[in-house]
Amino acid sequence: MPTPPLALDAMGGDRMPDAAVDGALAAVRDDRDAVRVLLVGDEAALAAALDARPDAADALAAGTLAVRHAPDVIAMEEAATDVRRRTGASVRVAADAVKAGDASALVSMGHSGATLAAALLAFGRVRGLDRPAITATLPAAARPVTLLDVGANADAKPRMLQQFAVLGSVHARLVHGVERPTVGLLSIGEEPGKGNELVRAAYPLLADTPGVTFHGNVEGRDLLEGTTDVVVTDGFTGNVALKLAEGEARVLFRWIREALRSGPRATLGGLLAKPALKRIGARLDPSTYGAQPLLGVKAPTFIGHGSADARAVANALRFAARAVRDDLVGRTSAALADAAAADPPDGADAADA
Amino acid sequence: MPTPPLALDAMGGDRMPDAAVDGALAAVRDDRDAVRVLLVGDEAALAAALDARPDAADALAAGTLAVRHAPDVIAMEEAATDVRRRTGASVRVAADAVKAGDASALVSMGHSGATLAAALLAFGRVRGLDRPAITATLPAAARPVTLLDVGANADAKPRMLQQFAVLGSVHARLVHGVERPTVGLLSIGEEPGKGNELVRAAYPLLADTPGVTFHGNVEGRDLLEGTTDVVVTDGFTGNVALKLAEGEARVLFRWIREALRSGPRATLGGLLAKPALKRIGARLDPSTYGAQPLLGVKAPTFIGHGSADARAVANALRFAARAVRDDLVGRTSAALADAAAADPPDGADAADA
Repeated sequence: MPTPPLALDAMGGDRMPDAAVDGALAAVRDDRDAVRVLLVGDEAALAAALDARPDAADALAAGTLAVRHAPDVIAMEEAATDVRRRTGASVRVAADAVKAGDASALVSMGHSGATLAAALLAFGRVRGLDRPAITATLPAAARPVTLLDVGANADAKPRMLQQFAVLGSVHARLVHGVERPTVGLLSIGEEPGKGNELVRAAYPLLADTPGVTFHGNVEGRDLLEGTTDVVVTDGFTGNVALKLAEGEARVLFRWIREALRSGPRATLGGLLAKPALKRIGARLDPSTYGAQPLLGVKAPTFIGHGSADARAVANALRFAARAVRDDLVGRTSAALADAAAADPPDGADAADA
Repeated sequence: MPTPPLALDAMGGDRMPDAAVDGALAAVRDDRDAVRVLLVGDEAALAAALDARPDAADALAAGTLAVRHAPDVIAMEEAATDVRRRTGASVRVAADAVKAGDASALVSMGHSGATLAAALLAFGRVRGLDRPAITATLPAAARPVTLLDVGANADAKPRMLQQFAVLGSVHARLVHGVERPTVGLLSIGEEPGKGNELVRAAYPLLADTPGVTFHGNVEGRDLLEGTTDVVVTDGFTGNVALKLAEGEARVLFRWIREALRSGPRATLGGLLAKPALKRIGARLDPSTYGAQPLLGVKAPTFIGHGSADARAVANALRFAARAVRDDLVGRTSAALADAAAADPPDGADAADA
């Protein structure tokens, strides 16, 4: 029996349903990842969008693409908690499809709070975690950096940052292949006493977490330097940092493009250097991943940008398909359980007594 | 009578006193800004550093450079509150020199919390502000962006963000010449309900502040796009964002340099495009400003990076000298007083009743 398709919320996001339909078509067309997609959204809107694409009929006939009706959608300005009562909302129907076994993962470019709420409601939390976290991979200088949380928890507690350190370490090991990942605590000064109340309270907890190789505080500049393999922070700071990093790359490359048109000499230089510069651009493009995994819920869940275009949707679907194939969620849960088991009960370690 | 010299904490910072001495010599050598510097720090260490520089004797003889002894220094890992009892600390002696009228501004690349504490102790707060803020200028795409707070208040209250909106508006008008600056509240979603507890509580206050043209929430990506002229945030998020923005520019330019050496074609292109690319690099270099003004204390105070080199120190001194000449602090205080006077007392505006 083949793996069930990915459930894509085809209505949540700024460019929906067009970006969802085009992205899904691009992803299923690419044989390499064997992606299959369940488009969840307004039947009439999806039918119209599919009718307008010549290759949609083949995909529907082949079963690589299917549609499930959802009459409602949670708009960006609405409350995440609406998910509970609005059972016909596209993100809720998509999550319920995963819960029923009709789909293997939830992918949404819509309201991230609503996606989180739908995932918590339908799948529940992994044991040992108070709250799930959205986990981003930054293309740092030396090696990829796992940054979490980037938006699930705008207000965090010290204990949550400690759990994110465990979660991030597991992610860096499973996804980036780092044997003993180092963990930094994002702060505003390297010294242990520096930071806000949250960071100062979290520091001693992180320093004393079995299975976590704690480096200490890191600063904003360390994120792209790759000073540590994992950086933990609250979802507010992490989200601001991620969007700033993406926005800065976009602005910088725009300036570079303009500079390389600023005269004949620069233009010729730009033409010659273009392939080399393009590789850097691709490395920094946020739609390379397309969506970030929400770790800590019991089924694979991926949250992308509201502004996602078809390319970002396609990359998100490919990324989600690989994560399903690699059983990222199952292995993360197992590693978390191992980490909890390795943690000796209070008082067991009497070496200091 | 000439303006008194700038008091430079010549001991606080990673590369002191060498960077202080070289930076001061470079700044006083440049006639354009008529900079004069009082180096505050360990007499013996400063004498040794000055002896080793051939042009120091002339500057000392001309009175553009002078030394004031301070036997102590607050190290990066020590508590900011030490400033109160350690009266011989270089940053404290420098602040006291300003207070006594022997110097016109305090400039420090050392412990920023200690610099803040010394400024509050020696100068006091401007009327109408609960807390001062460190104010950074970002080289955004369309126009400069005033970001505050970038580190003075790791934990902020909603009312402080409201005051920062007034302070930032005054700064954008005085320093960047924007007649009616727009103000954004840094958050993790554009919609009014998005953000952490602090931002959600601050939003209605900012929306209702006379003299502030409130745009609403902005996100990390808006910082370098220049969506608004001013962005207000707590000192933790602002500091992380500023250091990330600087660090990313550094990493990106390193990648570009490497890419432009990756083969003969790219190398030739790089040689031709170099001048155009260099202009972008200069625009993004944090040492272009060298230090950020601490606004909201009664005397000019500038706080730079602990990692500042001689070039950053020289730029900080030039920037401080211009701010003193333009009476930035006096005009900021006057504008704040005007803004407070324009604010009708509670109940005066009964239009909604």
